[in-house]
Amino acid sequence: MLAAMSAAPVGDDVYEEDPTVRRLEEVAAARFGLEAGLFCPSGTMTNQIAIKAHTEPLSEVICEQTAHVYLWEVGGIAFHSGASVALLAGNRGRLTAAQVEAAIRPENIHYPTTRLVCLENTHNRGGGSCYSWDDMAAISEVAKRHGLARHLDGARVFNALVATGQRSQDYGQLFDSISVCLSKGLGAPVGSVLLGSADFIKKTKRIRKVMGGGMRQAGYIAAAGLYALENNVDRLADDHRRAARLAEVLRQQPYVAEVLNPETNLVIFRLHDSLPAADFLAGLEQQGIKASSFGPQWIRFVTHLDVDDAGLSRVEEALLAAVPAAV
Amino acid sequence: MLAAMSAAPVGDDVYEEDPTVRRLEEVAAARFGLEAGLFCPSGTMTNQIAIKAHTEPLSEVICEQTAHVYLWEVGGIAFHSGASVALLAGNRGRLTAAQVEAAIRPENIHYPTTRLVCLENTHNRGGGSCYSWDDMAAISEVAKRHGLARHLDGARVFNALVATGQRSQDYGQLFDSISVCLSKGLGAPVGSVLLGSADFIKKTKRIRKVMGGGMRQAGYIAAAGLYALENNVDRLADDHRRAARLAEVLRQQPYVAEVLNPETNLVIFRLHDSLPAADFLAGLEQQGIKASSFGPQWIRFVTHLDVDDAGLSRVEEALLAAVPAAV
Amino acid sequence: MLAAMSAAPVGDDVYEEDPTVRRLEEVAAARFGLEAGLFCPSGTMTNQIAIKAHTEPLSEVICEQTAHVYLWEVGGIAFHSGASVALLAGNRGRLTAAQVEAAIRPENIHYPTTRLVCLENTHNRGGGSCYSWDDMAAISEVAKRHGLARHLDGARVFNALVATGQRSQDYGQLFDSISVCLSKGLGAPVGSVLLGSADFIKKTKRIRKVMGGGMRQAGYIAAAGLYALENNVDRLADDHRRAARLAEVLRQQPYVAEVLNPETNLVIFRLHDSLPAADFLAGLEQQGIKASSFGPQWIRFVTHLDVDDAGLSRVEEALLAAVPAAV
Amino acid sequence: MLAAMSAAPVGDDVYEEDPTVRRLEEVAAARFGLEAGLFCPSGTMTNQIAIKAHTEPLSEVICEQTAHVYLWEVGGIAFHSGASVALLAGNRGRLTAAQVEAAIRPENIHYPTTRLVCLENTHNRGGGSCYSWDDMAAISEVAKRHGLARHLDGARVFNALVATGQRSQDYGQLFDSISVCLSKGLGAPVGSVLLGSADFIKKTKRIRKVMGGGMRQAGYIAAAGLYALENNVDRLADDHRRAARLAEVLRQQPYVAEVLNPETNLVIFRLHDSLPAADFLAGLEQQGIKASSFGPQWIRFVTHLDVDDAGLSRVEEALLAAVPAAV
Repeated sequence: MLAAMSAAPVGDDVYEEDPTVRRLEEVAAARFGLEAGLFCPSGTMTNQIAIKAHTEPLSEVICEQTAHVYLWEVGGIAFHSGASVALLAGNRGRLTAAQVEAAIRPENIHYPTTRLVCLENTHNRGGGSCYSWDDMAAISEVAKRHGLARHLDGARVFNALVATGQRSQDYGQLFDSISVCLSKGLGAPVGSVLLGSADFIKKTKRIRKVMGGGMRQAGYIAAAGLYALENNVDRLADDHRRAARLAEVLRQQPYVAEVLNPETNLVIFRLHDSLPAADFLAGLEQQGIKASSFGPQWIRFVTHLDVDDAGLSRVEEALLAAVPAAV
Repeated sequence: MLAAMSAAPVGDDVYEEDPTVRRLEEVAAARFGLEAGLFCPSGTMTNQIAIKAHTEPLSEVICEQTAHVYLWEVGGIAFHSGASVALLAGNRGRLTAAQVEAAIRPENIHYPTTRLVCLENTHNRGGGSCYSWDDMAAISEVAKRHGLARHLDGARVFNALVATGQRSQDYGQLFDSISVCLSKGLGAPVGSVLLGSADFIKKTKRIRKVMGGGMRQAGYIAAAGLYALENNVDRLADDHRRAARLAEVLRQQPYVAEVLNPETNLVIFRLHDSLPAADFLAGLEQQGIKASSFGPQWIRFVTHLDVDDAGLSRVEEALLAAVPAAV
Repeated sequence: MLAAMSAAPVGDDVYEEDPTVRRLEEVAAARFGLEAGLFCPSGTMTNQIAIKAHTEPLSEVICEQTAHVYLWEVGGIAFHSGASVALLAGNRGRLTAAQVEAAIRPENIHYPTTRLVCLENTHNRGGGSCYSWDDMAAISEVAKRHGLARHLDGARVFNALVATGQRSQDYGQLFDSISVCLSKGLGAPVGSVLLGSADFIKKTKRIRKVMGGGMRQAGYIAAAGLYALENNVDRLADDHRRAARLAEVLRQQPYVAEVLNPETNLVIFRLHDSLPAADFLAGLEQQGIKASSFGPQWIRFVTHLDVDDAGLSRVEEALLAAVPAAV
Repeated sequence: MLAAMSAAPVGDDVYEEDPTVRRLEEVAAARFGLEAGLFCPSGTMTNQIAIKAHTEPLSEVICEQTAHVYLWEVGGIAFHSGASVALLAGNRGRLTAAQVEAAIRPENIHYPTTRLVCLENTHNRGGGSCYSWDDMAAISEVAKRHGLARHLDGARVFNALVATGQRSQDYGQLFDSISVCLSKGLGAPVGSVLLGSADFIKKTKRIRKVMGGGMRQAGYIAAAGLYALENNVDRLADDHRRAARLAEVLRQQPYVAEVLNPETNLVIFRLHDSLPAADFLAGLEQQGIKASSFGPQWIRFVTHLDVDDAGLSRVEEALLAAVPAAV
């Protein structure tokens, strides 16, 4: 990947003159059955730009109550877009078409105007849960029928594709815009791509500019993204296999109260109250293993590019060693 | 009231030179144990000004998921203040201190900063439900301990005072700002007052100005508000008595599935599915009786200044007459 | 006027059920050759609602650098609309078509998008200066050709009509929206009306709601506005005559350095440096005469409904008496 | 530089774990006599974050009427910060202390609150003009005395330092925040650093996050910035020498009406009306030479890292060849 970065032909992307960025945007758009792409420094930016472009002040956005766009982007929906949120309680982050339809505001001067539905697939807070094709299609149909825009937060969409066997090319039929991360599971150092119709992407360029996401010779980092798209997708299956293995090990530990069934590369579990989460995380940290707190007693593991089978074995050993501390 | 309006001494309130407005602001502030007041054309404005003054962009506001400030003010929290919302599910609109405390965001760069708790008393969507003093005091204590501002949407606070026997003068200890409506139950044609400390009200004057709420010879309408404060509070007990009577009648109707226990002047009930709400409302309308739809099959009646005992009898007759239509 | 207020039939204007407000809106719209109106508590609100409705974030508004909408509305263009301003230097507040055309931003990702031209007639900071019909028409034509919306801040538009003999009915051809004040020169206690097409006014209702300008039984104050529209327009000629007289007197005073030629009811003049403006104003204040500071050594007098010929004589005497103090 | 990028140690900068980013931020802060730094993908982002952090809605920002922060950042001051602008006419972009002091708004409920002065050094639209130390210090003193924050848009500050001999370490005394670009003249592919006190930078991290400027393994591009800071500053003197040479050549061309005296690496000149700017630029383009239009008939050349003496000669030849086309 570093070799690809160094060898990348570059230009000034603010003036759309960086050939590597152009190519990344085209490759990503084609991959998801959409017309055009916009390279940005982060997934928060691609999500927030999309929300801004789909709404106007006094709009409302429908999303799950633990969606990344609502919960982890510093209240950006209100900050950037002046838009209200209708927050729904999903099943591990997944909404149903009926829920979405019921949340659409009727015409009334007291209400904001529902404009946008945001889905997240896989869903981070849901523990890497995947939408079935039919559920996504049904929500998409409801949204379209009511004239709502449809955005997919695809920070982890490749995990969903690998886990379900869905085809990325078909996604363009269901969504008006998709945000795809090249870092995280795919392993590029920096960057996300926002995908949509040519008109939509044209509109987003000015929003990216005002947010400060217009970069000059961005080709060096876009090259890493291209490399990741071409080389690091299929290997996500290994991450999923390792996550499944980890869940199995965790279920056998006496200090573990509950493990969410891992559908992709996230393993979410709850510690018994007798083992304080802070102690557990500190113990792992000492052995060079990182995990995140996910609420009181809940922990999240992520399997990724830098965790191979040997690494997984080390984690397993650490989990076994955690027992005495816990008892 | 009209005589009071016509006789009011007036001035230019933009330059704080209207004596009637001044007097209304002082009387209202003293009534609630706070230092100063700001006269505004509506309760939406007093609420939204308060939220703006208590927050900054990237803040978060805690409120009940059906609170007027969130649900009926066109998404104004996002629009005016760029602030996010943490929406809690209350008991007929009432939150608990434990819920509020759990909703305060920890320090984390991904989160907005919790700044404000908004309560609503009585709670409109909760069917005119009242907070007990202890519950409000407990929430106020939690908020204060965490450095959060505390706002009361008191659009119907006089109903709460009359129903519970709480003393308005004590409210200033629990809240940093209170929004009080002079229209609705109190019967003034126009206007609300925002109450708070002298410093807080000073800050809100510029916000009222930019929102277009600075009025010139506003004394004519402030005079009606003063009249209402002095003459129309005690009679709310009559509205409550009539609401209780209405609930009793509704409970006996075969087409009524459920009636929320009315605590003040709102009567909320659910029709059996066999009687479409639209038909029911249309039937009442024909007899000159207004009620509001409150969700599928849910209806809201309001008893107020213009509904006397004779009026109530007419409503009762109409409800009995609705039976054949329903069966 | 007070009698008209007390006798007004009223209703709940939030639900468009106040007949007096409806009538005021219709009368005002017809008067200016536009389809519909929206009654609001202030001219700042009508202006800011219009700007919001004509723009979206990342828009730019063209106006004169001392326009009320930019200079005296607390930066509301940025606050409410997230819109940038292109500020032009006019001749006593009046722009030319050439200036406006040159200020339209070319298509460039670095620029906001020019969406709106705001004129002000008469122009407050320009000392009540009036646009000629041809100049307004030329600006309107340029704006239309470039797809820009055209808003008139008509806080003092009746003064312009009376002074120039232009017909209000013709204004609807030149502007997409007009803000008309019923207080100030017309003498109603409170209120302004925003005028435009039926579609435009429909759109503005939700904005008025979120800004807190939706009032309940607003008919009482709308009645005063109707009275003012029907009775207080022609008498503005008296104010203009008195302003001309005042200018004449001022020109003869040794402490006056310069007097702007009054075109309507505003008299703007500059004191010699030897007479501090604060002293001059304080001297008038003692005699119950109000004037405003308008920058270092600049003073503004306004002639209006409450200044009759006797009052004018008192002002003249006070101005003569100011001489000794000044020398 | 590419070698430095590939060899950079990296981490997740969202969690402040990227050592190369940390080092760049520290080196840049120390260079300008400030405590801390924040690495961002662009200079628009560092400027807009600074403005947001120094203001609140209903604030006003004082800047020159052609400042980059106002003119070239898509109206971001209004969009992100809801802040108004006081636009001053400078001498080639340079303000004076007297101008700044006169632009501070007095306390008045109709005005926004002046909070921030932004300077730009060198000034892009001013043709790379430099502030003298005394002029900057006088403005800084006025701002401090009135409690205003002071931000420097230092996109081209290294050019100013090299041209004037001012010491970067002294700048921290004059400004509360400085935005420094690593691309443009310094030659790094991507990135800018915002500098300020430790408290200020802490506050800006959440703003960077919501704007989508939090990047993951940003060390690869930060390494290029570090390389540029350490190796590409002194060579700016060559760019300045070449710009002076270019100006000399241009002054001798019959089709050139006027050349601004180049103080650094920007050469701004005006073509006679007989040579349309579009034709002139097209002619250069054919020879692989890029210049920008800078208003009707005005052209801007930039000398930089990729223009050596041989390149300069090619430009000179092209300028001579432009004559026949022009005559």
